[in-house]
Amino acid sequence: MASKIRLGILGGGGNSLIGVLHRVASNMFDQFEIVGGVFNPVWEENLAFAKEIGLPTDRIHTDFETLVKEEVRLPENERMQVISVLTPNFLHYPMAKKLLENGFHVICEKPLTTTYKEALDLKRTQELSNSVFAVTYTYTGYPMVRQMRKMVEEGVLGKIHKIDVQYYQGWINPVIHDPEQRAATWRLQPEKSGISCCIGDIGTHAFGMIEFLTGLKVSKVLSDLNYLYEDNKMDIDGTVLIRCADGVKGVIRASQIATGEENSIIVKIYGQKAGLKWEQENPNYVYLMEEGQAMKVMKPGHAYNSHLSLDGTKLPPGHPEGIFDAMGNIYKGVARAIKGESYDSGEFPTIMDGLRGMNFIEQTVASNAEGNVWKDLD
Amino acid sequence: MASKIRLGILGGGGNSLIGVLHRVASNMFDQFEIVGGVFNPVWEENLAFAKEIGLPTDRIHTDFETLVKEEVRLPENERMQVISVLTPNFLHYPMAKKLLENGFHVICEKPLTTTYKEALDLKRTQELSNSVFAVTYTYTGYPMVRQMRKMVEEGVLGKIHKIDVQYYQGWINPVIHDPEQRAATWRLQPEKSGISCCIGDIGTHAFGMIEFLTGLKVSKVLSDLNYLYEDNKMDIDGTVLIRCADGVKGVIRASQIATGEENSIIVKIYGQKAGLKWEQENPNYVYLMEEGQAMKVMKPGHAYNSHLSLDGTKLPPGHPEGIFDAMGNIYKGVARAIKGESYDSGEFPTIMDGLRGMNFIEQTVASNAEGNVWKDLD
Amino acid sequence: MASKIRLGILGGGGNSLIGVLHRVASNMFDQFEIVGGVFNPVWEENLAFAKEIGLPTDRIHTDFETLVKEEVRLPENERMQVISVLTPNFLHYPMAKKLLENGFHVICEKPLTTTYKEALDLKRTQELSNSVFAVTYTYTGYPMVRQMRKMVEEGVLGKIHKIDVQYYQGWINPVIHDPEQRAATWRLQPEKSGISCCIGDIGTHAFGMIEFLTGLKVSKVLSDLNYLYEDNKMDIDGTVLIRCADGVKGVIRASQIATGEENSIIVKIYGQKAGLKWEQENPNYVYLMEEGQAMKVMKPGHAYNSHLSLDGTKLPPGHPEGIFDAMGNIYKGVARAIKGESYDSGEFPTIMDGLRGMNFIEQTVASNAEGNVWKDLD
Amino acid sequence: MASKIRLGILGGGGNSLIGVLHRVASNMFDQFEIVGGVFNPVWEENLAFAKEIGLPTDRIHTDFETLVKEEVRLPENERMQVISVLTPNFLHYPMAKKLLENGFHVICEKPLTTTYKEALDLKRTQELSNSVFAVTYTYTGYPMVRQMRKMVEEGVLGKIHKIDVQYYQGWINPVIHDPEQRAATWRLQPEKSGISCCIGDIGTHAFGMIEFLTGLKVSKVLSDLNYLYEDNKMDIDGTVLIRCADGVKGVIRASQIATGEENSIIVKIYGQKAGLKWEQENPNYVYLMEEGQAMKVMKPGHAYNSHLSLDGTKLPPGHPEGIFDAMGNIYKGVARAIKGESYDSGEFPTIMDGLRGMNFIEQTVASNAEGNVWKDLD
Repeated sequence: MASKIRLGILGGGGNSLIGVLHRVASNMFDQFEIVGGVFNPVWEENLAFAKEIGLPTDRIHTDFETLVKEEVRLPENERMQVISVLTPNFLHYPMAKKLLENGFHVICEKPLTTTYKEALDLKRTQELSNSVFAVTYTYTGYPMVRQMRKMVEEGVLGKIHKIDVQYYQGWINPVIHDPEQRAATWRLQPEKSGISCCIGDIGTHAFGMIEFLTGLKVSKVLSDLNYLYEDNKMDIDGTVLIRCADGVKGVIRASQIATGEENSIIVKIYGQKAGLKWEQENPNYVYLMEEGQAMKVMKPGHAYNSHLSLDGTKLPPGHPEGIFDAMGNIYKGVARAIKGESYDSGEFPTIMDGLRGMNFIEQTVASNAEGNVWKDLD
Repeated sequence: MASKIRLGILGGGGNSLIGVLHRVASNMFDQFEIVGGVFNPVWEENLAFAKEIGLPTDRIHTDFETLVKEEVRLPENERMQVISVLTPNFLHYPMAKKLLENGFHVICEKPLTTTYKEALDLKRTQELSNSVFAVTYTYTGYPMVRQMRKMVEEGVLGKIHKIDVQYYQGWINPVIHDPEQRAATWRLQPEKSGISCCIGDIGTHAFGMIEFLTGLKVSKVLSDLNYLYEDNKMDIDGTVLIRCADGVKGVIRASQIATGEENSIIVKIYGQKAGLKWEQENPNYVYLMEEGQAMKVMKPGHAYNSHLSLDGTKLPPGHPEGIFDAMGNIYKGVARAIKGESYDSGEFPTIMDGLRGMNFIEQTVASNAEGNVWKDLD
Repeated sequence: MASKIRLGILGGGGNSLIGVLHRVASNMFDQFEIVGGVFNPVWEENLAFAKEIGLPTDRIHTDFETLVKEEVRLPENERMQVISVLTPNFLHYPMAKKLLENGFHVICEKPLTTTYKEALDLKRTQELSNSVFAVTYTYTGYPMVRQMRKMVEEGVLGKIHKIDVQYYQGWINPVIHDPEQRAATWRLQPEKSGISCCIGDIGTHAFGMIEFLTGLKVSKVLSDLNYLYEDNKMDIDGTVLIRCADGVKGVIRASQIATGEENSIIVKIYGQKAGLKWEQENPNYVYLMEEGQAMKVMKPGHAYNSHLSLDGTKLPPGHPEGIFDAMGNIYKGVARAIKGESYDSGEFPTIMDGLRGMNFIEQTVASNAEGNVWKDLD
Repeated sequence: MASKIRLGILGGGGNSLIGVLHRVASNMFDQFEIVGGVFNPVWEENLAFAKEIGLPTDRIHTDFETLVKEEVRLPENERMQVISVLTPNFLHYPMAKKLLENGFHVICEKPLTTTYKEALDLKRTQELSNSVFAVTYTYTGYPMVRQMRKMVEEGVLGKIHKIDVQYYQGWINPVIHDPEQRAATWRLQPEKSGISCCIGDIGTHAFGMIEFLTGLKVSKVLSDLNYLYEDNKMDIDGTVLIRCADGVKGVIRASQIATGEENSIIVKIYGQKAGLKWEQENPNYVYLMEEGQAMKVMKPGHAYNSHLSLDGTKLPPGHPEGIFDAMGNIYKGVARAIKGESYDSGEFPTIMDGLRGMNFIEQTVASNAEGNVWKDLD
């Protein structure tokens, strides 16, 4: 399979959901071949998993250090070209940094790092390399999310005046009210998850979506976060007032105690000429609302969509495409970048997007901690 | 028609939407007879309108003062019992006050007054009278809104942890961007509309809905309001962080620049045991979300609904009831109150609800004006 | 109230749903005054009901015959002008006929009669009179149903090629499977309900909707009806293949055993240029589908709607209007007709529409009875 | 990749949608390795496509005959185990037959063959072999379609009384009205597409869905098909009345002239205890309707789903899965079958399902051709 891109994977073994998502996505456009990796820190489990997914075991390594050492020894046309980092959050930074320093391209799960400082350092490391670096804000891969970005860019909305993004889940509700359970939940432990639970895990998606869709940069935040219990050190719900560079106002609402919600991301952007709405749980519909006009429901695959949207649509109208497809679209963009082909800046989120996400998390937590005051973003 | 309640109407003539809404609603349960009023300050138009709607003209008066003077002279069994105040906002206070002082029951459009101070005085006046006083927060009359209130009361949600209410419209968008048009819009003139446009007109509905549904009292607000242009003195969009008496957090989002939105009220209340959702544009559905259960879609007219909901449902399941019905349900409650029959506290919003609304508006504007700080409500 | 139309009502007393619907609707545009009637065959109940709804009792009569006799004696400017017939189906024909013969206008509930022969006779009687005659196919009063009719008329769909109307309910499911219960249900007794249960009660609505919306006449039917049990003499579900005059094909699906369905009317009309969809349970949305275009969601109250639609819309966009409004719109049209004002042919269904409905029911039952063969309509 | 199943592919090269769907699906559960095939009858294009998708070219063959000859020569542990037949419909039969005779497992696109006779022969050939044979009725792979099947099986609906399946598309509308275009469309040419266009291509999906979901066998059909133009030999729309073995009635509605519809499959099954609804364009929702209960909206990934549904769900609730996933689920089942592992009969459609589909198509066309009479199925 000489012409496929050689992909290595770190983490994502066993029942990992993110693991299967990346494997499927990498196969979606016939662009990648998984050649090896370290799926699990326990050697037996690592090996067993490689066999389970039908991989030859000669490039399954005992640990990350060994993988790097062995791979760099290989001739260039055999060596892994890109490596997906699917390990726990606190490992993203050291692994990605070392990979960049050794000339690998990187696909990294979000959040990019556990602190803004780490992210900043990683960004600088990447600038010194020639590496492609993608952060998998998966939702930006949906064909209709891409279409919204293009519509905003083309001025369909006119000047933007209001932004509202929701990311509501309810999964932590059965956990949070019991002291023992919440003590045992790794996402509620700062040493494993960083400074924030809800804002870090999902608020950052909402934030990234805003910058992806509008091209605006969020410049200030004022947050009101929920911790519910005194012994809980991590936010599990919050509202963040935002101000963008040119004064545009907006709000991010994120929650993990929105009981019964599954993964309810709702994006609303209102401009002088029109408004746009999108809901992740029905990702194939974009609602275009123009004053005094019938609301338009746009769907993937139609000629009225932009090239960026159509490029990520594999099926004719009426055939729903899911999140695997969204991830697949991101991989496709990465493949183009690796091959040196031209690609649109919306095809995959870069390290810069990851960096901004870290900045957002830290300032949001700070705003709340300092009494709900405005904090600036870099 | 001896046994019907004698109703007078102030305002609501010509093409007034609120006028037709009140007339239809008052007829909906065969409880009221419109016997006269002052529909319009211009006598010819007043008279013409009375004829247009088929009213005898002997109790159509030249002005409010005359109406009160003439009506109090009539024997008790002929005199108007209740008067609906549908005049511009700044007239609500003086008219309602005089009506109370002369022994009439009052149905008053919202907002109750133009200042909190007026509202407080009106509340005191009402306490000294024996009058029924309803403020028409129409949306509380929907059968499924009533059902939600009962479910919360019965503990279906468990302890509430998060409240989120949206009220988005786009109607001011075609007006706000043109200096001449915005100068000519009465809703943007403080002397006619009071201290606030968006929060006063619709944010207050969201606020009232929260207190109606949860039984919680909002105790603090922190707002971020949009004015867009320096010469615009009135907010036309805003986000309000709220804190309830027992620490529950929430957010109210209101906008008149949400381009293309019509009257998009969305209520979400999340508790420890379950969450509830309701959308005004499809008012017959309530969504009950319980962790790990199939989402339940509840609809009017079914036996599983509470008495309060069923009492406001006139048709079998599957027959949508609209906003006229919501208003009609409120009138029905008022009729019960006037007749001295027992009624549920949820049957119509009282002057107390109107008072709290004024408090909310003023503190929200103050929070924003003082740099997005927390403000207490009484 | 000299200028209002004097309305009498037959039937609709007690807890009658159809009674409250007609009373509210008649009040909706300030056009009618209910002056008397016979609400109930039992005199005490009749009288009690009149008092309950606040009517003076001098024109509450003991029976239909007396009402006619007394009313015709009154001077023309006091006499009832129009009478609503809300009695059981088998009384529609004799009552409506006598009313026509005595110069009254008539508003009659559907089905018009119990046989096509009666309906034909009634049609002839009406032609000899100068009377306005409305049959209350309520759903045609919805603003967006009216809008669809106008769009078809204006050629928005191009030539129609396919029609599909569903009317699914589940209410008879708890009744039909128990021999005793089904024996006790009047709708399942031919002597009370006529030749058909499901097709007669709801299939006829679907049929009327097709002719109302498309202007096409159904010329042939082929039906497959469900009776489920041998001792059940009345259809409770069925599919009807239809052919229109110019060869257009379509299908009507009606059911009372669609368990869990409430009142699910779904209309789909497809033409060469576009398709239209409408669902009764969300009656304010019409979906316009054009090949290769974003689907358009049209809503009431917007300037893009036709006059016929806007004339039946009382509130601004975003405020749902329910079925009371639909009925109110029909009454408004009737009022115009009675006053001799000009009105659109879509404003209320006429006796002709009722007649065709009877024809449809009989031919559909015949098609099934004769082995699912095609039957012609007149 | 020793442990993966060796898969060959016939057809599906170039821009083929069905090609990418199969490749992605085959990768979705890490079970298959594509080792070769014949993607295109033109050698240069065949070779170029293999390179494009990153395949080594040593097992890309010039034609089907050569592929079979070469593969059977290989040792058993290298030989292709299963071959996907994605070629034009008329080639399904000869290719699948030869593959079975040479010991290959087969995954065959629908429709299975072009005539019932061929299908019957293929079924017999398969019975003589030890081969797994899947027909890709893709929609049966959706997690919630699988869930419905299990619910029906478990008696959640009670005895079924009514079935209604719609499959509406509008794609042929821009083609059908122009004589030249319709003459040039291969789907409208009997020699290429068989006896039917609409019923054959999509009605058969509706039919298969009914038998998959209910376990009932359709025993009779009565159809009314649309051809629109005399020179058009192929149905492009139709309604089919169905009768199942135990007398259950239902209707299949299929159309390719439903202008503006994309791929609107709607399934409704009503039983004595409850009803079920599913819509392909939002495939993650199943609606359970029980008399007098709140409607339940069931979604994938929850513990309340059956094993069959959860086995085909790769992500947590709230993450939509699309049609690629549906196809992936089918491949997964095939992999189990090939490996000799136990699997549920709902995991992939078999040759038997394909056979019944052919029977349905032929009898439906015959019913219409003979004047809309009932026809029996075997």
